[in-house]
Amino acid sequence: MLEGRVILKQGREKKLRHLYPWIQQGEIAEVQGSPTPGALVQVYAKEGNFVGVGTYNPKPRFPVRLLSLQEEPIDQAFFVRRLQRALSLRQKVVSDTNAVRILFGESDGIPGLIVDQFGDYLVVQVRTAGMERLKPLWLSALSEVLNPKGILERSEMESRREEGLCPHTQTLLGEMPEYIPIHESGLEFLVPTQWGLKTGFYIDQRDNRRQLARQIQPGERVLDLFCYTGAFSLYAARAGAQAVGVDILPDATALAQRHAEMNHLEATWLTANAFDWLVEAQGRGEQYDWILLDPPAIAKTRGQRDSLKWAIWKLVYNALPLLPEGGRLVVCSCAYQLDLSIMIDTVRLACTDRGRALWVDDVSFQSPDHPFLLQFPESLYLKCLWLRVG
Amino acid sequence: MLEGRVILKQGREKKLRHLYPWIQQGEIAEVQGSPTPGALVQVYAKEGNFVGVGTYNPKPRFPVRLLSLQEEPIDQAFFVRRLQRALSLRQKVVSDTNAVRILFGESDGIPGLIVDQFGDYLVVQVRTAGMERLKPLWLSALSEVLNPKGILERSEMESRREEGLCPHTQTLLGEMPEYIPIHESGLEFLVPTQWGLKTGFYIDQRDNRRQLARQIQPGERVLDLFCYTGAFSLYAARAGAQAVGVDILPDATALAQRHAEMNHLEATWLTANAFDWLVEAQGRGEQYDWILLDPPAIAKTRGQRDSLKWAIWKLVYNALPLLPEGGRLVVCSCAYQLDLSIMIDTVRLACTDRGRALWVDDVSFQSPDHPFLLQFPESLYLKCLWLRVG
Repeated sequence: MLEGRVILKQGREKKLRHLYPWIQQGEIAEVQGSPTPGALVQVYAKEGNFVGVGTYNPKPRFPVRLLSLQEEPIDQAFFVRRLQRALSLRQKVVSDTNAVRILFGESDGIPGLIVDQFGDYLVVQVRTAGMERLKPLWLSALSEVLNPKGILERSEMESRREEGLCPHTQTLLGEMPEYIPIHESGLEFLVPTQWGLKTGFYIDQRDNRRQLARQIQPGERVLDLFCYTGAFSLYAARAGAQAVGVDILPDATALAQRHAEMNHLEATWLTANAFDWLVEAQGRGEQYDWILLDPPAIAKTRGQRDSLKWAIWKLVYNALPLLPEGGRLVVCSCAYQLDLSIMIDTVRLACTDRGRALWVDDVSFQSPDHPFLLQFPESLYLKCLWLRVG
Repeated sequence: MLEGRVILKQGREKKLRHLYPWIQQGEIAEVQGSPTPGALVQVYAKEGNFVGVGTYNPKPRFPVRLLSLQEEPIDQAFFVRRLQRALSLRQKVVSDTNAVRILFGESDGIPGLIVDQFGDYLVVQVRTAGMERLKPLWLSALSEVLNPKGILERSEMESRREEGLCPHTQTLLGEMPEYIPIHESGLEFLVPTQWGLKTGFYIDQRDNRRQLARQIQPGERVLDLFCYTGAFSLYAARAGAQAVGVDILPDATALAQRHAEMNHLEATWLTANAFDWLVEAQGRGEQYDWILLDPPAIAKTRGQRDSLKWAIWKLVYNALPLLPEGGRLVVCSCAYQLDLSIMIDTVRLACTDRGRALWVDDVSFQSPDHPFLLQFPESLYLKCLWLRVG
């Protein structure tokens, strides 16, 4: 299946050997053969030494995504081995749920492929032309190892266009239900397969939901902005809090209400723009013991980082008047582009602009089934600041 | 008690109003009156507006440490109010121990003063000439609010010299026992008052010890480098691990053994230089399931940051061969100067130099009775990376 060779510029093989799997356009000296988009290629150093095997796509900013530093065939057995290694990690770090990210792309040695397990079903995201081409292999590997009832592809990322692919959703195997039932920490949820954000459920916030539940006191008022299908709010409600979830998607708040009923819990759901709603709530003099701000990753590129910073500043600035002394604010950002120090600076600015002192109780990240590979900094994307108004 | 006025240069009052309490030499336009080292002064903006009240010392890099943005007397009642606010936070964030940092300097609005409560006793650190001068006031406040059996000052920081003070230890109130008995998470420890590092016990690692204990599996081999008086090892031993603690201080390993006996636990204690010992253990082919690296803050200044980076690189580089696939590495740094991103880069470099992939399970910080005040970045000092060898 190999369609050619990519020869790197002098010294550019080092980062690959150091387990960083992406090569930029400017790091390529020569492409031998005529590899078509997504083809497997061998990667060589300028001096002629073999470096590894990866996928190649002439279009995007990162044409090469390395799969292996070995001269090994990229076949079904390769994907089975990678998958088994990934599953072995999940067995150690995940418990009390059947919603698990079992493959997290680069962190698990398979750049471009995300696989979430929801009970008997899998939902995948394909980010590169390479993974599109290798679909038969990894689909067979997933079936061999996990024997799922159905596999859904939800590749709705606009970033696929850079790879020459369109965003799309399709069933790859079996039959998908409209909603997949899952459980997490004793709560029941439904994962929508025909609409919904990302793969349908924010698995990455699992440990943060648990952290919230451990800290909530009965009777506390919790405002959950960008609540999506209500998971944070329902953890809070079960801990005895009065939760209010706000989301702009009517489908999301409707499903949140269904989740509340399924779990015999009560919460208030509001379909609204969180930015506007915050300002209105301030006008009404509302007060909360907790405010959760978990905006979607509105920054997809470094260039959009400033608008995300501004959005976070605005949310924090407008949330602070709703918090009494001792009130708690949880600010999340799932955009890799906004790193932790910029995020802290942004929140700091909003607080000082309001003249409020804030203590940081904790900083937390994505759940560990979304492993942050030290050698691939981009794999750390979700950051949550747990703040306390002084 | 006010001895003068400090007039700031144009615009330099902003950061004070934004709750950052330190003013540098170069930010001062004029000092009126002849304030002696440690005196209380009023701080004014260039335009003549009152900014706040602080202490003044002509010698150090930061002559002004602001105590209040109000025109209020700095008296015993002031310290009582600050103390009560700090205690109210601790009641919310600390449980199952009688060893608590009840005042964390700038984070609690009292720059230069650290107070640790160990059962019926207090151990304090005085970092500035200002807090030396105000000692009678805060001592009375501590007695009024907490009525301790004894107060010990352990101000052994070399940084006091910059303030014109000498490192020293003295009993300020009552009579101090040679060892103060404390408990934490059901374990008993002794806090040495006549020797020992910092205030005698690393309260700041409490939550990290608990995090370790939650993750340890019975029978695992744990290597605890820079173990001091053995707290991490004993948490591990209680969870069923075989712990080996290494420290260069014979007093520390002797007390660690006493701690083991007091708690009916077993662990191995070695008095050795951790750097050398790691290399020797590698020669003997030793293997561990966990290695904890918690070196003391060898960097006290920004200039020493490179030597700390090098030390961490060396420790991680030499620890990796002792860890099998799936092995766990916890790397801590308690130096403010080495920020999280530099620390991550340093560990990354050591891993890539060894050709090992590492997943970051978590990043944790100092326990929340050492609050990280968002407006005072220096208050975030302890960072721990929880790593897993891929």
